[in-house]
Amino acid sequence: MNLKNAGVRLSTNTIFKVYCNYGSNSHTNESRVLNSRLRRTKKIDAYWRACNYLAVGMIYLRSNPLLKEHLKPEDIKHRLLGHWGSSPGLSFVYVHLNRLIKKYDLNMIYLAGPGHGAPGILAPVYLEGTYSEIYPDKSMDEEGMRKFFKQFSFPGHIGSHVTPETPGSIHEGGELGYSVSHAYGSVLDNPDLISVVMVGDGESETGPLATSWHSNKFINPIRDGAVLPILHLNGYKIANPTILSRISHEELNALFVGYGYEPYFVEGNDPKIMHEKMAATLEECITKIKKIQAEARSSGVAKRPRWPMIVFRSPKGWTGPKNVDGHKVEDFWRSHQVPMGEMHSNMEHLQLLEEWMKSYKPEELFDENGTLIPELQALAPKGDRRMSANPIANGGLLRKDLDLPDFKDSEYALPIPAPGKTRFENTKAMGIFLRDVMARNMNTFRVFGPDETASNRLHPIYEVSKKVWMADYLPEDEDGGHLSPDGRVMEMLSEHTLEGWLETYLLTGRHGLFHTYEAFAHVIDSMFNQHAKWLDICKNHVPWRSPVSSLNILLSSTVWRQDHNGFSHQDPGFVDLVTNKSAEVTRVYFPPDANCLLSVIDHCLRSKDYVNVIVADKQSHLQYLTIDEAVKHCTKGIGIWDWASNDHEKGKANEPDVIMASCGDVPTMESLAATAILREECPDLKVRFVNVVDIFKLQDETEHPHGLSHRDFVTLFTEDKPIIFNFHGYPWLIHKLAYRHPNPERLHVRGYKEEGNINTPLELAINNQIDRFNLVIDVIDRVPKLGSRAGYLKELMKNEIIDNLNYAHTHGIDKEEMRHWQWPF
Amino acid sequence: MNLKNAGVRLSTNTIFKVYCNYGSNSHTNESRVLNSRLRRTKKIDAYWRACNYLAVGMIYLRSNPLLKEHLKPEDIKHRLLGHWGSSPGLSFVYVHLNRLIKKYDLNMIYLAGPGHGAPGILAPVYLEGTYSEIYPDKSMDEEGMRKFFKQFSFPGHIGSHVTPETPGSIHEGGELGYSVSHAYGSVLDNPDLISVVMVGDGESETGPLATSWHSNKFINPIRDGAVLPILHLNGYKIANPTILSRISHEELNALFVGYGYEPYFVEGNDPKIMHEKMAATLEECITKIKKIQAEARSSGVAKRPRWPMIVFRSPKGWTGPKNVDGHKVEDFWRSHQVPMGEMHSNMEHLQLLEEWMKSYKPEELFDENGTLIPELQALAPKGDRRMSANPIANGGLLRKDLDLPDFKDSEYALPIPAPGKTRFENTKAMGIFLRDVMARNMNTFRVFGPDETASNRLHPIYEVSKKVWMADYLPEDEDGGHLSPDGRVMEMLSEHTLEGWLETYLLTGRHGLFHTYEAFAHVIDSMFNQHAKWLDICKNHVPWRSPVSSLNILLSSTVWRQDHNGFSHQDPGFVDLVTNKSAEVTRVYFPPDANCLLSVIDHCLRSKDYVNVIVADKQSHLQYLTIDEAVKHCTKGIGIWDWASNDHEKGKANEPDVIMASCGDVPTMESLAATAILREECPDLKVRFVNVVDIFKLQDETEHPHGLSHRDFVTLFTEDKPIIFNFHGYPWLIHKLAYRHPNPERLHVRGYKEEGNINTPLELAINNQIDRFNLVIDVIDRVPKLGSRAGYLKELMKNEIIDNLNYAHTHGIDKEEMRHWQWPF
Repeated sequence: MNLKNAGVRLSTNTIFKVYCNYGSNSHTNESRVLNSRLRRTKKIDAYWRACNYLAVGMIYLRSNPLLKEHLKPEDIKHRLLGHWGSSPGLSFVYVHLNRLIKKYDLNMIYLAGPGHGAPGILAPVYLEGTYSEIYPDKSMDEEGMRKFFKQFSFPGHIGSHVTPETPGSIHEGGELGYSVSHAYGSVLDNPDLISVVMVGDGESETGPLATSWHSNKFINPIRDGAVLPILHLNGYKIANPTILSRISHEELNALFVGYGYEPYFVEGNDPKIMHEKMAATLEECITKIKKIQAEARSSGVAKRPRWPMIVFRSPKGWTGPKNVDGHKVEDFWRSHQVPMGEMHSNMEHLQLLEEWMKSYKPEELFDENGTLIPELQALAPKGDRRMSANPIANGGLLRKDLDLPDFKDSEYALPIPAPGKTRFENTKAMGIFLRDVMARNMNTFRVFGPDETASNRLHPIYEVSKKVWMADYLPEDEDGGHLSPDGRVMEMLSEHTLEGWLETYLLTGRHGLFHTYEAFAHVIDSMFNQHAKWLDICKNHVPWRSPVSSLNILLSSTVWRQDHNGFSHQDPGFVDLVTNKSAEVTRVYFPPDANCLLSVIDHCLRSKDYVNVIVADKQSHLQYLTIDEAVKHCTKGIGIWDWASNDHEKGKANEPDVIMASCGDVPTMESLAATAILREECPDLKVRFVNVVDIFKLQDETEHPHGLSHRDFVTLFTEDKPIIFNFHGYPWLIHKLAYRHPNPERLHVRGYKEEGNINTPLELAINNQIDRFNLVIDVIDRVPKLGSRAGYLKELMKNEIIDNLNYAHTHGIDKEEMRHWQWPF
Repeated sequence: MNLKNAGVRLSTNTIFKVYCNYGSNSHTNESRVLNSRLRRTKKIDAYWRACNYLAVGMIYLRSNPLLKEHLKPEDIKHRLLGHWGSSPGLSFVYVHLNRLIKKYDLNMIYLAGPGHGAPGILAPVYLEGTYSEIYPDKSMDEEGMRKFFKQFSFPGHIGSHVTPETPGSIHEGGELGYSVSHAYGSVLDNPDLISVVMVGDGESETGPLATSWHSNKFINPIRDGAVLPILHLNGYKIANPTILSRISHEELNALFVGYGYEPYFVEGNDPKIMHEKMAATLEECITKIKKIQAEARSSGVAKRPRWPMIVFRSPKGWTGPKNVDGHKVEDFWRSHQVPMGEMHSNMEHLQLLEEWMKSYKPEELFDENGTLIPELQALAPKGDRRMSANPIANGGLLRKDLDLPDFKDSEYALPIPAPGKTRFENTKAMGIFLRDVMARNMNTFRVFGPDETASNRLHPIYEVSKKVWMADYLPEDEDGGHLSPDGRVMEMLSEHTLEGWLETYLLTGRHGLFHTYEAFAHVIDSMFNQHAKWLDICKNHVPWRSPVSSLNILLSSTVWRQDHNGFSHQDPGFVDLVTNKSAEVTRVYFPPDANCLLSVIDHCLRSKDYVNVIVADKQSHLQYLTIDEAVKHCTKGIGIWDWASNDHEKGKANEPDVIMASCGDVPTMESLAATAILREECPDLKVRFVNVVDIFKLQDETEHPHGLSHRDFVTLFTEDKPIIFNFHGYPWLIHKLAYRHPNPERLHVRGYKEEGNINTPLELAINNQIDRFNLVIDVIDRVPKLGSRAGYLKELMKNEIIDNLNYAHTHGIDKEEMRHWQWPF
């Protein structure tokens, strides 16, 4: 490939030719084409002017929307909020895409990376009628327009991004960096879809965005749709130039060639010329996409093509005030948000605003009722072809339940001869189940993980679907590489990209699972926050959005089994973050064994509109419950394990001396081992064993829909007996959840604590299982009944701890009896 | 520039010439050069073989380090941990750098992006003597070598990454993605330093890494040192090829040209040829760096050059077993971690291990005592020039306290005529102080923020130092752009890159502040985790590391003032994460006003080895304390505000009916307003007002060094009176911190809650100040004393809430009396 020609700058002549070739269907002479081109450009420009007029109106006006009178201070909002800067560019592309949708009957959606430029999206959404259909009071007339203006970024109404309330949006763009991965997620298994994503040059500086360009190595042109990224180079962030706008054309071009694209450049500031360039370039890109797809689909050979992308360099705040108070505004960072303020005191500004808005000639665009004139209305696509009405962007409408095998089937469920006697890798059992989920849903289900599918023991999936890989192959890949252009397992060493893909795969109506090392789930903390907020808003404020599949996150390679990776790989705090988000959209599960994990994943794959976090380790663990017991236990979410307790005698009042509670696979084994010691050493002590799968069961019923009433809590935990709670994560989380229940001070939680002086990097040793002894000491310290036995037993436990640590430090492995410990009863 | 030639592949001839030019100092004939070249290569190869031998030993052996006897199963560790795959490549480069350090007396450090390949770093660190100097029991003899092997990734000893225990390391490489930003942070203001960073092709897929290549737009060749990035293309992650290893040479070359580098390629698998290529290429790169710097420094003109970088394509697990059990291992993902296991049962594997280790010919490398032979020892640099002993990588040694102005000076401190009467932007007061901190420390202090320095009101700094910018300039930048190649304010829209730069700027002995929007601090959650863990380990286990300056993080644009950005910009949870980390390294401050903020920032800039998080909003807020009062209040961290309380009468026992507590700027104003209402409406009610600056004061003294004793807690909060706590963040955090203190159930916390049905996107309206009324209702619900007044007052409060919301929804702004509320007493 000749790099010199890789970046295409179209000459005017080329533009003209391309435009002619694709802009009309019949062969025709040059003057007719020219006239037709000018007419069309004029109309597109008029539509764009209408968009810009509305964008300014949204930012400034609360009355007088058609400027039927001169602007008065009281027409202006008291606080001016919103982002003008990127709005004109966003709608510029929108209106050009409309032309192509109509011409080619395209199935297209639009993602606005600079979602702060919502006025540039809301405007065309309103103009094509969708907004009024969904929100009838924002009707397509003067009063509707007034309300449409006023509601923008106004208390009690909509925010200033492309929030979930915006028809056609699957990407809010509030937090920057995810537009490209979101675009790619939407086209997976959507072969006819073209997702156009406007990429801000500001957000391009973020890490998640910078790597997400590589998503093109995971798109199969036969099976998947196409993404057309448009880098919107409008030059500035809040108060700074952007990096990509201040490097040479050569570097910029090379960068996108390096990312695997064929970059096209549309650059300039004269709308007339820019309309022609954009029309021609988009035409060429769409044609190229269709050609790539047609070739792949007719040949059946899926290769990675060089997909087109566009660099669109236009002035920031394009068509806005050139100068305000002697300072440059258009094409400068000063137009980032509101180009001028003090509208209630500075009459020059008020005058300038009126001139600015009138420069769009609203009288040519809207009739006297405030309705867009029919000639312009005709430019928008109709019905579901409108990008704002495409059902793909309201994926719940298209979502079908997964075809799920019966997880209780003997293919998946483990036989349990007796509790605590056998071992198995919990996540592997789930992997076998997921294999068959995949096999039955080969167009609507994918699994996402950062290079860890096998490490996390989900490799049985490879029996039915490999990892998708569209980059180069080597012969040795055949030897266990599990790569294929048709694979449905998505692996890239970017949690951000994976999470971004999955989010929109779900928002467009499909299903999936993201699995990752527990500690590094924190890499996507902020993305989780944003998705949870999106779901929360949809659930409570956007009734027209149909429920989508839940975001299922499996945290594996957990803190307690990060032996050799040590301290830096130990962080169980992702669930802390999850519990900060709305109770209406968050669920967290800690299945103690494989059968429970099967029950939990089945439940999660059926659920909608949640973020389900499942914490389950990949190593081999003791198994406790038969599949039927597991279903009951997981359905309740919390329960007494009779077989492990000795406080239960038929016909007698049952009041234990202590409650041993556990949550998580490793802690459950340790709690059981401590219980066994107690039952052996102190047979008079009445121990109740409670296991928690659904962590929100610990909350009060007023705080979370899964929370227990005080009565139910007391039924399990008694009114006042000590609770020795062994937990997978940071201990404070349990206190935070349970503090409203009776006598919270009796709750003692043993969990993971970050203390460099206690956990040396490898002090949580290989299969280090000394917590059982500490738990027994916790009981001794809190249960007076033990009396004189206490001292003896405590000494014994301390000796055990020292012995076990010494053994591990000497031999590099735990004692045999610890590694193969079983429930002894 | 001609892109075709941008990527330099050296022909053998070129290599030879370059090598000759730089490899010897005198003009000589070809055969002498050839001989000298071969001799040198041979020695370098021997040194590298010693590294590889040690690397394998670390992974496998616990005894018999010199293979004086045939390997027996008991010589092998029980659990085999560690990463072989990238180790040979890491040490390959290390030994070549040693040659250049010696030749040019370079000031150089080495960052291992794939820090999992620690054996490849530990080996040369041990061979050059540093390890034994620091850890004398790991001496340079047989017994020392045995201990050195055994301790690796072993319970109670060191982990398997380049952890803080590793001399010369400032980058653990456990969590991937930050090596390049870490390398750049180290060279800022270190003009003589060359930081060589090995970049994993796996980590290159992460977002943070992908954008950090752009750091070259922020390096001034006059003032800063140079980074030489070496992309280590060894082809595979855990079980997958890497993207960058499976794209064409043309794309790869274009990518780095696009990032602004001049890429050099060193590719192959024959060590002999590769030694020559690497020697020649490194020579050329170092020469180029020196030339760039010399030109800039002699001309005084700082331009952005095209810095060199190297693409180093070598086989994964290079020199390891080619095949194991019929599967390809070398140059494949199977060599990622331990190439073969079952060493205690599979004697063929044991045999293979012995052959593998002997292939390095240890008898040629070590004498019979296990000491590296003198001829090879001579290859390493001496003293501080050893990369493992460079004091820059133990920055506390070089750190000097900042020269700080007196924050109590009238230039910074605000005059406070009376509490709660005047308003000011808290962060702006800090900005004025930071301006003078900057002016006094123009080589050792920088401020980092993602395009928000002005937005967060820190713009006074621009008076003394602008934003560094090495990309292109436009004339309009003069109009308030505040850009300069000499700037010391670092702005890029990548929180990851900024945080990475700052971390190593601190670790190499300097000072700084990172400020960001509160909600988006979550973007760097995982980086914070890693840095806190690093500090924790250093403090508790690495006595030879000198304390470094604290990582100071200012969270501004807080949840309560994210009106127009709405729900997606509201997240106060970063501090929740911080409180999960070790109490020994975490501090969190919520100064209520500008003078308190000044006191806090002064304290933070003096402190060492902490992460200090300061939460302070940028908007205009009421001011309460004079600077002297602020110093006292912040030094205590928590205190009663007498002037706001009415429970205090001299000579009388003081027992309030209720404690109004607050933490954070906005909540403090609301709590005061509620207190004012209570005092006006219920003058008989005794109210005590407590303000919390240092949030860890709420913990128990056993949990955090700042925690209060129960006695001190009771002194402030009484034994059992209701506490109505108004908080900036999620309310559960306060419960989590305070649950150990007496009667925690009396603590009622009002904070931010994520509930889509309560907080509509803009329901937390513009300056929405209805919390005061809710707080009064909280008191009414909890203080029986109010008796019959309660009903009337509660109705009044509910009416106020409705009135205020209605007003905001109608007018888009809060009522006048709310916006200008003052403390009425």
